[in-house]
Amino acid sequence: MDITTKFSDRVKHLEASAIREIFKLLAKPGIISFAGGAPDPELFPKKEFAELAKEILETQGNTALQYGITEGYAPLREWVKDRLVNQGVLTKEDDVIIGSGGQQGIDLATKSLINPGDGVICEEPSFIGGLNCFRSYNAQLYGVPVLDDGIDTEKLEELLKSHSNIKVLYTISTFQNPSGITISLEKRKKILELAEKYDILIYEDNPYGELRFSGEEVPTLKALDKNSRVIYFGSFSKILAPGMRLGFVSAPAPLLERMIICKQTEDVHTNVLSQMIAYEFVTRNSIDEHIAKLRAAYGKKCRLMMDCMDKYFPAAVKHTCPEGGLFLYCTMPEGYDSKELMKKALERNVAFVPGTSCMIDDKATYSTFRMNYSTASEEDIETGIKTLGEVLHQFMEA
Amino acid sequence: MDITTKFSDRVKHLEASAIREIFKLLAKPGIISFAGGAPDPELFPKKEFAELAKEILETQGNTALQYGITEGYAPLREWVKDRLVNQGVLTKEDDVIIGSGGQQGIDLATKSLINPGDGVICEEPSFIGGLNCFRSYNAQLYGVPVLDDGIDTEKLEELLKSHSNIKVLYTISTFQNPSGITISLEKRKKILELAEKYDILIYEDNPYGELRFSGEEVPTLKALDKNSRVIYFGSFSKILAPGMRLGFVSAPAPLLERMIICKQTEDVHTNVLSQMIAYEFVTRNSIDEHIAKLRAAYGKKCRLMMDCMDKYFPAAVKHTCPEGGLFLYCTMPEGYDSKELMKKALERNVAFVPGTSCMIDDKATYSTFRMNYSTASEEDIETGIKTLGEVLHQFMEA
Repeated sequence: MDITTKFSDRVKHLEASAIREIFKLLAKPGIISFAGGAPDPELFPKKEFAELAKEILETQGNTALQYGITEGYAPLREWVKDRLVNQGVLTKEDDVIIGSGGQQGIDLATKSLINPGDGVICEEPSFIGGLNCFRSYNAQLYGVPVLDDGIDTEKLEELLKSHSNIKVLYTISTFQNPSGITISLEKRKKILELAEKYDILIYEDNPYGELRFSGEEVPTLKALDKNSRVIYFGSFSKILAPGMRLGFVSAPAPLLERMIICKQTEDVHTNVLSQMIAYEFVTRNSIDEHIAKLRAAYGKKCRLMMDCMDKYFPAAVKHTCPEGGLFLYCTMPEGYDSKELMKKALERNVAFVPGTSCMIDDKATYSTFRMNYSTASEEDIETGIKTLGEVLHQFMEA
Repeated sequence: MDITTKFSDRVKHLEASAIREIFKLLAKPGIISFAGGAPDPELFPKKEFAELAKEILETQGNTALQYGITEGYAPLREWVKDRLVNQGVLTKEDDVIIGSGGQQGIDLATKSLINPGDGVICEEPSFIGGLNCFRSYNAQLYGVPVLDDGIDTEKLEELLKSHSNIKVLYTISTFQNPSGITISLEKRKKILELAEKYDILIYEDNPYGELRFSGEEVPTLKALDKNSRVIYFGSFSKILAPGMRLGFVSAPAPLLERMIICKQTEDVHTNVLSQMIAYEFVTRNSIDEHIAKLRAAYGKKCRLMMDCMDKYFPAAVKHTCPEGGLFLYCTMPEGYDSKELMKKALERNVAFVPGTSCMIDDKATYSTFRMNYSTASEEDIETGIKTLGEVLHQFMEA
């Protein structure tokens, strides 16, 4: 029997992400990868987690291993809510649920909101996991360029004016993946004004917001939102560890209720032991001290990568200058194809993500590429950027 | 802004499960609950897990806490496949992926296969998590009664003959939730014949199959399947611990590939630490010895519950006699409403799941109810069934 004849319209058109295909090549020994989006494993609190896991399983094993609550482990949920209230992101009236990673929040919201053909505006470039999620519910995707101070609000309004099917704007507002860019306060206000005027919702995906290593804090869109238009997604992946799959969402109560029903049919609830480890860690240790360590480490690595780029890359290759997060974004002059560059780089054992993986039209040619600075060691950053510089010089002179 | 105006067609009609509402009442102190579907927490291997968790985080913490592979932790995936091959469920050519509980497999398959309006045939009664999953993708549900030897194959063929939109039959083939009934070998062959004749797929959901405490093994539908019509779902929830959220799926390769793309957008991958704990546990200990303990314990509790029912329940109330699993199913004479019975039982601090929660038309009245025997202690089974017997006598004489 040919199973492909049975596929739903949702998945017929879906393709395995190009990043995944690249990742398969990364198993190659000796490769220096700037392709991932992973935190530095040397900064995981492994020792603390090992002690906590043992203690929790010994003293609260019946809770840690039994079915849990779909909304999330209550103490962790409360802790997340309190923290977001203290940060000014939420008010006391807002509610939060725990999801299996930030990604699940985006999926549950999209399942609950998007009919086939509904429009979702995405930043270009954007996060492939977001784009593929919207694609998997047959959303119509529209792109708006990311400028140095964030999404191009003029283009945004043009799109909203000319398309009545748009329901959601998806933005990674702070230290964007892949660009590293943060939306300015002025633009945040403008975005909220447009959301009101054109009656759309905003997904504010903020997994990197805690990782600022320079510049000034900017309030989240959610903090500025007066009319419950922002659905806010956060994550423990970048501040604790991604393998735990812990994230959270805040949304208007009736939407959260639908999302909970969808979560019941998706995975019933999130892994309980990891929720308990996270809760015990953040209450017994200073999470702010832990985050301060991450900020310092990633700030140092980012600075190093930028310095190496300025030293070894052709002057015509531009890069963004992030104030936090895990990524910066490079642009070659018009006409150079970063997918071709990637092939050359892989021959020299260096990997990155070509811009095509971050774009709505992933068949077109782009001169951009994403570079991650959090995972590689400082030594590998030096060596890798130097090699990539050589590859770039050859590639652009060829 | 009224968020409800933005809901997708998928979730507009969804309702929080009635079981959940019952569960809220279970917080009442002193209640004896036969309503859950949870394993006995006293049988969780807590001590072993505590040691393993500590060791894994100390020695393989970078793997346990970093992003993992969407398909699942490779050693666990191999182990599951080997076990299923050894059990005769799969052939060496079949493939398996790990999901966040058995539920996620059902969700990913349904997302990949079911268009709005496609037909899914379910056993009546059936598992609410399955029914709600199909509802959340706007499937058209059709019910076929469960008889003493499993699904009514005549009714099944009538349905298949008269409806061209049917794509999937959903069956919990062994120790069914909620009935406890196992489909006979003869009927399994008939079901596969009908699937072939009417070109439909079969979801075989088998979370309880390992928990046989009496009678003879029956081959799974998957083992009998000659033409890749069966998508097979398994789970670690009942043989290890549900809080870990670990399940697995076997499906034809092109479908698995779509499901993996959907899993990437749903939760990226399954919690890594729990996959590693499960793998180390099953390879260092005898999982068969562990399962033998569970079988003995649940067999004893099931026997006790049936004995108490025969002693204390009115003779007119019938119950199924399961050979394994976690549930048995009771039927009062026609006309009595088990939702009304539940109110009376809750007044006396005893809880169960009324049949309405297991049916496609969950607004109708049913004289049936589901009883779980795995969670309560033996003492509570005695006390609870005696009390429920009193409630039943009063209810049926009123």
